[in-house]
Amino acid sequence: MPILNLNGYKIANPTILSRISSEELENLFKGYGYTPYLVEGSDPETMHQKMATVMEECIVKIREYQSEARSNNKAFRPRWPMIILRTPKGWTGPKDVDGHKVEGFWRAHQVPMGGMHSNPEHVRLLEEWMKDYKPEELFDENGTLIRELKELAPVGIKRMSANPVANGGLLRKDLKLPDFRDYAVTMDKPGTVEVENTRVLGKFLRDVMKKNMTNFRVFGPDETASNRLQDIYEVTKKTWMADYLPEDRDGSQLSPDGRVMEMLSEHTLEGWLETYLLTGRHGFFHTYEAFVHVIDSMFNQHAKWLDICKKHVPWRAPVSSLNLMLSSLVWRQDHNGFSHQDPGFVDLVTNKSADVTRIYFPPDANCLLSVADHCLRSKDYINVIVADKQNHLQYLTMEEAIKHCTKGIGIWEWASNDDCGKAADEPDVVMACCGDIPTTESLAATAILREEFPELKVRFINVVDLYRLQTETEHPHGLSNKEFDILFTPDKPVIFNFHGYPWLIHKLAYRRTNQERIHVRGYKEEGNINTPLELAILNQIDRFNLVIDIIDRVDKLGSKAVYVRERMRNAIIDNLAYAHEEGMDRSEVVNWKWSY
Amino acid sequence: MPILNLNGYKIANPTILSRISSEELENLFKGYGYTPYLVEGSDPETMHQKMATVMEECIVKIREYQSEARSNNKAFRPRWPMIILRTPKGWTGPKDVDGHKVEGFWRAHQVPMGGMHSNPEHVRLLEEWMKDYKPEELFDENGTLIRELKELAPVGIKRMSANPVANGGLLRKDLKLPDFRDYAVTMDKPGTVEVENTRVLGKFLRDVMKKNMTNFRVFGPDETASNRLQDIYEVTKKTWMADYLPEDRDGSQLSPDGRVMEMLSEHTLEGWLETYLLTGRHGFFHTYEAFVHVIDSMFNQHAKWLDICKKHVPWRAPVSSLNLMLSSLVWRQDHNGFSHQDPGFVDLVTNKSADVTRIYFPPDANCLLSVADHCLRSKDYINVIVADKQNHLQYLTMEEAIKHCTKGIGIWEWASNDDCGKAADEPDVVMACCGDIPTTESLAATAILREEFPELKVRFINVVDLYRLQTETEHPHGLSNKEFDILFTPDKPVIFNFHGYPWLIHKLAYRRTNQERIHVRGYKEEGNINTPLELAILNQIDRFNLVIDIIDRVDKLGSKAVYVRERMRNAIIDNLAYAHEEGMDRSEVVNWKWSY
Repeated sequence: MPILNLNGYKIANPTILSRISSEELENLFKGYGYTPYLVEGSDPETMHQKMATVMEECIVKIREYQSEARSNNKAFRPRWPMIILRTPKGWTGPKDVDGHKVEGFWRAHQVPMGGMHSNPEHVRLLEEWMKDYKPEELFDENGTLIRELKELAPVGIKRMSANPVANGGLLRKDLKLPDFRDYAVTMDKPGTVEVENTRVLGKFLRDVMKKNMTNFRVFGPDETASNRLQDIYEVTKKTWMADYLPEDRDGSQLSPDGRVMEMLSEHTLEGWLETYLLTGRHGFFHTYEAFVHVIDSMFNQHAKWLDICKKHVPWRAPVSSLNLMLSSLVWRQDHNGFSHQDPGFVDLVTNKSADVTRIYFPPDANCLLSVADHCLRSKDYINVIVADKQNHLQYLTMEEAIKHCTKGIGIWEWASNDDCGKAADEPDVVMACCGDIPTTESLAATAILREEFPELKVRFINVVDLYRLQTETEHPHGLSNKEFDILFTPDKPVIFNFHGYPWLIHKLAYRRTNQERIHVRGYKEEGNINTPLELAILNQIDRFNLVIDIIDRVDKLGSKAVYVRERMRNAIIDNLAYAHEEGMDRSEVVNWKWSY
Repeated sequence: MPILNLNGYKIANPTILSRISSEELENLFKGYGYTPYLVEGSDPETMHQKMATVMEECIVKIREYQSEARSNNKAFRPRWPMIILRTPKGWTGPKDVDGHKVEGFWRAHQVPMGGMHSNPEHVRLLEEWMKDYKPEELFDENGTLIRELKELAPVGIKRMSANPVANGGLLRKDLKLPDFRDYAVTMDKPGTVEVENTRVLGKFLRDVMKKNMTNFRVFGPDETASNRLQDIYEVTKKTWMADYLPEDRDGSQLSPDGRVMEMLSEHTLEGWLETYLLTGRHGFFHTYEAFVHVIDSMFNQHAKWLDICKKHVPWRAPVSSLNLMLSSLVWRQDHNGFSHQDPGFVDLVTNKSADVTRIYFPPDANCLLSVADHCLRSKDYINVIVADKQNHLQYLTMEEAIKHCTKGIGIWEWASNDDCGKAADEPDVVMACCGDIPTTESLAATAILREEFPELKVRFINVVDLYRLQTETEHPHGLSNKEFDILFTPDKPVIFNFHGYPWLIHKLAYRRTNQERIHVRGYKEEGNINTPLELAILNQIDRFNLVIDIIDRVDKLGSKAVYVRERMRNAIIDNLAYAHEEGMDRSEVVNWKWSY
């Protein structure tokens, strides 16, 4: 039951709700769906009695609604009671200090009077105020709380601070998880099958839901179907307590006991989810990538809270991780355009403690399943998963995906050609990528290189776990410098194709050997309502620009390189013109497959 | 007058307000302070008439309130009219498609039916729908709109698209600015006088207000006084339209025509400010640094909007810049602690277009005045100013400050000792700093170095304009590589003390010569309720750790360095212990002055 303590003031102003008419105030809370009860006054004795009476009345009302619903076995939305407790700010504190009103005014905020070392009048006021509490009736001559009062306090878990709901990790039970391997996308060859990655995840989440119908919820701002997770509706619907219409039966997926929380307010969802986790349950939040910035500030505070709890509050039991999936990504905003292009949330995440933040970019559906399973089992982290909902090429079998995600970063041997079985083998260039869409473009660039420069040795590296790029001294997932140099070589050019803003990679990798040879492509605020390839080209993460990047950085390619470079420029012009004319990409781009 | 078009649905769900009782809905808008008028129905002819009647009624009501207030010359808060227009979603579109309800249901969102190339039934539906508009009555045989209808359209600035209020740059007049030099802090020597930086700014803003009482407003979440800008109240108060109490006369600074907008909702403030700028006026927004993240998403969208307007919408006249000052900074949260420590907003800003973003870290009050004057004159930018409210040392005379801010980055000769008048002079180390608090610590470290290693040649560089660190190819304010190398040398160690997260500097400077010799200190999420020095030490931006950083990076210091390093470690331990015991810093730290 909400209690609004309307004490009238903030740090330096009256509060709005305390200065509108009582009729407006009552209307507001009725409009929010409540039955407001007003408890108003300033005489402590009377107010304690009033509050107790109204509280009793409200609880009786709540019990009535509950028993009505339970006896009829029919959900309805009661106008739940709420209390507006109208008391003076700084209640029972000094009325005036230095001739200025304090009790019942904004001056009572924080420190009603200072100067305890230097102002005897203030000391006198303080003494008077404290004596008001009649300490001689509360403590004995040794200053100990008298037994009669001490015995009033509840014991054990009845103490507010020891209530397990306030330390939800104590109540938390691990999720019962189906085997994520059962949802695997199968394929004969990498880069040939297309699947909507989050759609596959939806089937897994559906069955997670089915096995955990009392302690798991999915949260999203009106986008569960848009983000392709709609299979969840096969086992539970969206919570809906307001009115129903007959047409809702045809596809609206509403139910009073639905376990999918949809509301077009990311703030409300994040608040619900945090509370749900902190009381010992599990959740999964998904949202459009660009609009997760709406909850930046809430993320910051939750990350700080988790960090302090883990390091400094040993009695607090670990809670489930906050799992946040960003979908409907920057690279696929074909009809929404520039306003929906913002991959910068992960930049913010990397500012928070390495002990509580994790960021994953699964390149395909099997990797997404493996990552999601891992996140749903974990505790005390904020896991950010970036995964798109559109059709994308699939690369790894489930067995390969598990290994790849466990390593977090790895060489894709089938896409590399630098191992020719000779002792002196080393690549001419490292093609690195992170994110589903950049991975496809890097792979397509690799295919062009195989045609044009069969002698060029390319090592293909994919990054799932972004923090692998940091050093081990900065993040527990960081690669040691030795491991990094073995993967990326200490000195060969690296063409890194990244999902987000390119400079984030520099920020993470600035300590690496010869970092200036790491050339990063990513989103740089060049966008509009574009076709996928057009948008990739505008930001230079496309296959053709990547080939140009390599030509410009690998010396040994010889005179042929000049001609290939020219052909790439031509291909860019051609493809932009086609996209502009036709409103879609050429079929050889749309249907491109890996064929080696 | 607000009109809520309650069409009942979003992309995949009913809207809450359309499914609560009409009594609750009415209560809600009464609670918000309005008199709601309901216009409800689905027959277009009747609805047009109803809407016209109600609109007329509302406008008459608004005129009545206005004339009442103007004839009595007394402000009051009327219950302004608002209209709830309840119509079907997809109104007049196809009722059903493929047996599913569309008009008046969420299916009408976006694309009510597709398959125009392949589904003749859908094409038939579309034709029926379009014919419904009776094109034969609207167009002549050539397909031209008939004259009678054409003449109904307004002309000139009565056209909605040509209304100058919708292109506010046309209405914008430059602010009349007092001479900011008149507010200068004077000093005999740098680093000896202390002043509250934003307090000085407050006097300037007060006089900006005085000269522009019709087109300038200051916005802040309940923090104008807390951020030390309260001198503004000498010329105008805070807007307050709700009830007044007699005690408000003693310091509440409320008035119905106040031009300071205070509300504990950063979202509302940012929305107000954007609207104010877009309609041709000027504003200044200030907020606690940690909580500006609340409006990250709004900032992102405004930056995108500005960028598009500047580059692609030539008819749109430039509007005043959005000026955002962050105060109550991470390094001075002595009683608020960890939750109030977050300097990461600027990280977000650097992700947006270089053509619209500017970031300033004035180190003292004179620099703050110079920067603020510049920002208030500018157009079509988002200017972020980071400046603290506490007492800080002052470094530059007004004349020096203007030069320093115009350059954006500069050597402070009085704090440097690398110029000994010899041709081969070059520094052993570059001490760089950015931000008011880090500047003091860097300077204090420099003082220790002068004592301990008088032969060590230190160049002291301060950064006001953060984007100077990027290359000129990335940001119009970026230094060329040549300029950068002249300032920082191409190869000497740089100890960069930064206000924000340290890796932001690496992100900006990753293209610089030998960037790995740039060693950055900054906030790294180590905080609590600490004294200023304690917090600085925990994050290693303090004078003692900076000296250690230099010892560890400059080889030539010899065996003495080992002993100095040890003394620095001892000083750290001593000062932490003192802060912990006493709850404050040692007086030699609090009262430290530059004495060279």
